[in-house]
Amino acid sequence: MLIKLINPNTTSSMTELMGGAARTVAATGSEIVLATSRSGPASIEGHYDEALSVVGVIDEIVRGEPADAYIIGCFGDPGLLAAREITTSPVLGIAESAMHAATFVATSFSIVTTLERTRIISEHLVRSYGMQNHCRRVRATDVPVLDLEKPGSNADAAILAECEKALMEDHAGAIVLGCAGMASLAARLQQRLGVPVIDCVAAAVKFAEALVGMGLRTSKVGDLAFPLPKAYAGKLSDYAPTSLRLHNSQSLAGPATSVRS
Amino acid sequence: MLIKLINPNTTSSMTELMGGAARTVAATGSEIVLATSRSGPASIEGHYDEALSVVGVIDEIVRGEPADAYIIGCFGDPGLLAAREITTSPVLGIAESAMHAATFVATSFSIVTTLERTRIISEHLVRSYGMQNHCRRVRATDVPVLDLEKPGSNADAAILAECEKALMEDHAGAIVLGCAGMASLAARLQQRLGVPVIDCVAAAVKFAEALVGMGLRTSKVGDLAFPLPKAYAGKLSDYAPTSLRLHNSQSLAGPATSVRS
Amino acid sequence: MLIKLINPNTTSSMTELMGGAARTVAATGSEIVLATSRSGPASIEGHYDEALSVVGVIDEIVRGEPADAYIIGCFGDPGLLAAREITTSPVLGIAESAMHAATFVATSFSIVTTLERTRIISEHLVRSYGMQNHCRRVRATDVPVLDLEKPGSNADAAILAECEKALMEDHAGAIVLGCAGMASLAARLQQRLGVPVIDCVAAAVKFAEALVGMGLRTSKVGDLAFPLPKAYAGKLSDYAPTSLRLHNSQSLAGPATSVRS
Amino acid sequence: MLIKLINPNTTSSMTELMGGAARTVAATGSEIVLATSRSGPASIEGHYDEALSVVGVIDEIVRGEPADAYIIGCFGDPGLLAAREITTSPVLGIAESAMHAATFVATSFSIVTTLERTRIISEHLVRSYGMQNHCRRVRATDVPVLDLEKPGSNADAAILAECEKALMEDHAGAIVLGCAGMASLAARLQQRLGVPVIDCVAAAVKFAEALVGMGLRTSKVGDLAFPLPKAYAGKLSDYAPTSLRLHNSQSLAGPATSVRS
Amino acid sequence: MLIKLINPNTTSSMTELMGGAARTVAATGSEIVLATSRSGPASIEGHYDEALSVVGVIDEIVRGEPADAYIIGCFGDPGLLAAREITTSPVLGIAESAMHAATFVATSFSIVTTLERTRIISEHLVRSYGMQNHCRRVRATDVPVLDLEKPGSNADAAILAECEKALMEDHAGAIVLGCAGMASLAARLQQRLGVPVIDCVAAAVKFAEALVGMGLRTSKVGDLAFPLPKAYAGKLSDYAPTSLRLHNSQSLAGPATSVRS
Amino acid sequence: MLIKLINPNTTSSMTELMGGAARTVAATGSEIVLATSRSGPASIEGHYDEALSVVGVIDEIVRGEPADAYIIGCFGDPGLLAAREITTSPVLGIAESAMHAATFVATSFSIVTTLERTRIISEHLVRSYGMQNHCRRVRATDVPVLDLEKPGSNADAAILAECEKALMEDHAGAIVLGCAGMASLAARLQQRLGVPVIDCVAAAVKFAEALVGMGLRTSKVGDLAFPLPKAYAGKLSDYAPTSLRLHNSQSLAGPATSVRS
Repeated sequence: MLIKLINPNTTSSMTELMGGAARTVAATGSEIVLATSRSGPASIEGHYDEALSVVGVIDEIVRGEPADAYIIGCFGDPGLLAAREITTSPVLGIAESAMHAATFVATSFSIVTTLERTRIISEHLVRSYGMQNHCRRVRATDVPVLDLEKPGSNADAAILAECEKALMEDHAGAIVLGCAGMASLAARLQQRLGVPVIDCVAAAVKFAEALVGMGLRTSKVGDLAFPLPKAYAGKLSDYAPTSLRLHNSQSLAGPATSVRS
Repeated sequence: MLIKLINPNTTSSMTELMGGAARTVAATGSEIVLATSRSGPASIEGHYDEALSVVGVIDEIVRGEPADAYIIGCFGDPGLLAAREITTSPVLGIAESAMHAATFVATSFSIVTTLERTRIISEHLVRSYGMQNHCRRVRATDVPVLDLEKPGSNADAAILAECEKALMEDHAGAIVLGCAGMASLAARLQQRLGVPVIDCVAAAVKFAEALVGMGLRTSKVGDLAFPLPKAYAGKLSDYAPTSLRLHNSQSLAGPATSVRS
Repeated sequence: MLIKLINPNTTSSMTELMGGAARTVAATGSEIVLATSRSGPASIEGHYDEALSVVGVIDEIVRGEPADAYIIGCFGDPGLLAAREITTSPVLGIAESAMHAATFVATSFSIVTTLERTRIISEHLVRSYGMQNHCRRVRATDVPVLDLEKPGSNADAAILAECEKALMEDHAGAIVLGCAGMASLAARLQQRLGVPVIDCVAAAVKFAEALVGMGLRTSKVGDLAFPLPKAYAGKLSDYAPTSLRLHNSQSLAGPATSVRS
Repeated sequence: MLIKLINPNTTSSMTELMGGAARTVAATGSEIVLATSRSGPASIEGHYDEALSVVGVIDEIVRGEPADAYIIGCFGDPGLLAAREITTSPVLGIAESAMHAATFVATSFSIVTTLERTRIISEHLVRSYGMQNHCRRVRATDVPVLDLEKPGSNADAAILAECEKALMEDHAGAIVLGCAGMASLAARLQQRLGVPVIDCVAAAVKFAEALVGMGLRTSKVGDLAFPLPKAYAGKLSDYAPTSLRLHNSQSLAGPATSVRS
Repeated sequence: MLIKLINPNTTSSMTELMGGAARTVAATGSEIVLATSRSGPASIEGHYDEALSVVGVIDEIVRGEPADAYIIGCFGDPGLLAAREITTSPVLGIAESAMHAATFVATSFSIVTTLERTRIISEHLVRSYGMQNHCRRVRATDVPVLDLEKPGSNADAAILAECEKALMEDHAGAIVLGCAGMASLAARLQQRLGVPVIDCVAAAVKFAEALVGMGLRTSKVGDLAFPLPKAYAGKLSDYAPTSLRLHNSQSLAGPATSVRS
Repeated sequence: MLIKLINPNTTSSMTELMGGAARTVAATGSEIVLATSRSGPASIEGHYDEALSVVGVIDEIVRGEPADAYIIGCFGDPGLLAAREITTSPVLGIAESAMHAATFVATSFSIVTTLERTRIISEHLVRSYGMQNHCRRVRATDVPVLDLEKPGSNADAAILAECEKALMEDHAGAIVLGCAGMASLAARLQQRLGVPVIDCVAAAVKFAEALVGMGLRTSKVGDLAFPLPKAYAGKLSDYAPTSLRLHNSQSLAGPATSVRS
């Protein structure tokens, strides 16, 4: 099984970090292919960064060898539904994966994320995914994304402190780490805190394997059907659906009108 | 990895049917152990049946070899939170598993279940799991649970008809089959309907593998901590927490006050 | 009118305490029959205790003289819907009764309950009963249920302190005491706090009288219809619906298919 | 116990009809005092009628002998919170009473009301009272309120037809009759339909008795405290809180700042 | 364009204050006509005051020259739906206007209002208007409405302090001032706080102009159709719909049955 | 006042159509500048089209003369929050504008939109904007966006038919036309249907004028602050926040840390 893990930001060291987390949990027989976005922001810390990162995500879905599943490796799940339109393989966001995982092992969780300004993005996702009653609070540490990699930063201490508040003040039963860059911290925090600490990259890898193993593929009826053929102009003319390499060989059979060949 | 699949009803032919679905999708290295409840209803078709089935579910969690994960094989997910209290291994309901799976491959789904009288049980679960915005409708076929196994019944036709209505009237992008006894129908229906059709047993098996693979165990802080030691009386005296065989060896470390030895 | 007040735990002193609260408010002509569960936990402080208490609740509904209404005397309302299936008489939970009562005399309330670990149970009930906009907060005192009876415990002080916080911090207009064992405190707290303090047992008794007085009986159409006849196995074989003594003489007339004789 | 049943419209024949329903269910020792509004609309069939009916409701609360409880006898519950501010006795709306009653005997209900234009009023109440998950649908019959009394009208047939649709299409487990003028139909419809049919007047009377019996009085802390003293001008100058006869003798003790003498 | 700004309380100095705010933002060609209620409370600080203020609001809508739009100048939006029934011109509440405005310039806001006892009124409006996910918190300053005009009061300082808490504790992106009497503070607070501070009167004026400019008029199909003709009794007999001067000349054409001439 | 109306698709004839609708309602003194996206899809009919249209929207916000307000002229409101990050001027989506407008003139509305596959996009917006209780239903006509301009298409008839169903079946009090391309139909449909029919382009123009007239600018505290400075790679390197021309001269003063110069 080939799982393509796409880092929607252009910082390849972060891709490597995610890749490490992914390979640690990948099953025998799962091949993790890493991809770093080639266009867009070096880190994703707001609506603007997120919106501009989608082009790079799309690129990585349509280029290279088709994968059995795709993972979008940023906690904002940028471009998730757009990506689902252009492939029959499952596409997973790491935020949705982590939140769903948390609900299986605790009746409540809190999210510990990076900048205050990204908190609202997580809160929007909590509502989109129906997690309002499970998620106690989204907690921002005000640690910039790329500081997570810096040896001398106080990122670890800030994250631990916020996790402890989540247990004491929110009475959370589990912690969701709200950034792909926190992947390396999960095991240590879990040991320290004594509650499940969910690494979003690991959750996405295992759920991707699970969905492929169930034989599920993205629905091609309704809003996730392949994009309608039409012209695209200007610097995005290559993104016209008819120009995209869309892999459909294993798609679910369906009414001719809803699956474009 | 040892996954124990518990049929909360006492009909062993249904256990076998579930077992078949489970083994079809289980990963190499996953051993599926089947257990049929030894006490309680022959089928679960209401709140009363469901409440009485919990004793048998508890029995199967505390007896025999400890498993790495437990699956409760009835679409009402009976006893789910109680079961989570008495083990550190993940415990999965098949209804929750199927609904979560559906959200990864479609933006909406409908549930097709058995008797009209069980519809409200599914609706309550939809709300508990935060699926109100994903689940378009719960559709009852009025097929009794045990008819699903009978060769001459019109169960298959009734289920197909209701699935087709789900696509036409609800505009559902996927179907969740709302009974463990429908496991054998999923592949055929998916082929016929051209949309993802989620078999709840398969979903639970793959998500159980995924959670174990992530290294997650049930939170023992808060409401899912081991039951407090106390006396149990009468015919349930064996169920006193101090009498249960509780496996804790791999539990998450945690504050002494919240994990009972 | 005969009202059977069932204590789902096996501690008869707590039954007596509830009985006192019940008889204080019962109308002339209402006879309160007390029943202590004969099987299950000595106190109910979690999902597991609650699930195992249902058998004892069922027992008390089907044994002895049929009552005009049944009250389940634990703030988790264990087995409420199962119990409603097996009788045409109204069955009331004390948590639901108290919350409904609070909405008639205040636009907001907070719940003050016992252990932190039971908080989530109350929160689930708040949502099931549609009280999210009325209930400001569920507050745990971390007083064990059986300490409520102990003369030397600091239970009373802890409860008062939490009630005062509910007024100051939550701006609650009323207090719901979230445990049957707190029944004796309601009057004193109301005097002290100057807001309505709802004793859940009293609320259930008066609402039981009210429903019987309205001529209402539990719906036997849909999910609350009598359980379907079927075999029950093992130690629960006596619980097969066909083995239960079900009183139906005063049931609402209805379509033959939905009311089992 | 003195219960004052206020008809917010000025049609005394409808007051009599309500009075009959009230007295049928009132307990021994409960005295039902009837009051017909002296100012405002002859029937209440919209937001405007409802808003203008509040003055008459207020009048009936402050005039005459103080009652132990007040009932506002229109399904829109006009002036409910305003009325609660000016008395320590419980004040009940018939819509809220009926909806709360329904939740005790069925897991779902539909409301059958009069004019299409009043449907939205009921829907707003459903949300205010947290009944969204219990109320399946509000069904309008387009029967004008005062036609309910007319012998030759087809009101009864229209209501029955809509109730039957509620059972067949909504799978409702109970019916709430959404107009005080339908009080006389409840028993017959219940007999005919085989499900609980809730008469809102009867529900309010029994719940009023229940609340008084629990010793509960309207909270005087927060928004339901007595109105602040201030001048009222023009034709409503008599409604200045200082001009009102406010009965406070049995009020809950409370902080001096929140209870006006 | 003639916009009538109605102060539902009888304090004309507050009307003047609102008028100033209104005229500051009114477009060339918009004429602001001020009206002070002639009957009812001197200030509106509770459900009772609010309910009694509706008569004065209705008076001002039906008397004088017909306006192209009406504004109800109290943050509780008293009588909003009743007022909409009796005119085809748009009627705007200042609370709804301010909340809607806030959602265009920030993803979250907090409301800073006057008395603690009015907080629940704002919270009810937040829910009615679907603002639960946008409004972080309603904050009461416990400043009485009429103190807002008093030179020596500490009203300004209390409001500023609460606004600062809204930014620090609620992480609000904007402030909605929850009282018409705070109109004069908005500009200064915005300058001081560095976030949008919405004055509800200004918001209502500009949205009134906008709606008139779009050619929209109040729907006369359904619950906002003109009141049905009927008798009104007693001191409100002049309020019978047939007695009202209802301006319909520019109404949307519609089915004869739903628009009363 | 300069209002820039951006068509996120690249079809300039549709820009002209929108421009006509905009200029019809624009106030004296409002200058409408039209912009057609120079890159991306010819029409927007799905998540993929929408995500790819954001680049073109961003382009039009940062190029040319700074505007006092920006309108994103596609009913999916693509890139709305990203656009708000890069300007202090208000940015309005036409879907949000239309829905907010509808709530001022009716208690309920239905949306009539184009393709079935875009229905879910509208439903997501309904929830994001808190319109669940106001929006009765989203109705798809299955008319492709560009057919709206074609003389011989049956688009008009299909839209009218769906509007009529919205009135009859949904009991909607108003219609929101869910596509910028339907702008020219609003007046005729309103005349025909007798209820408010909201043209989303007109609504956005008038609300843009209103917000500018209130002196409101986009909050620069929290998630809508200017994007953090950072590198952007590849074909999007020009989109690095430091490369963008960001107009801040009229921004709200604020803490130095949250407003980037």
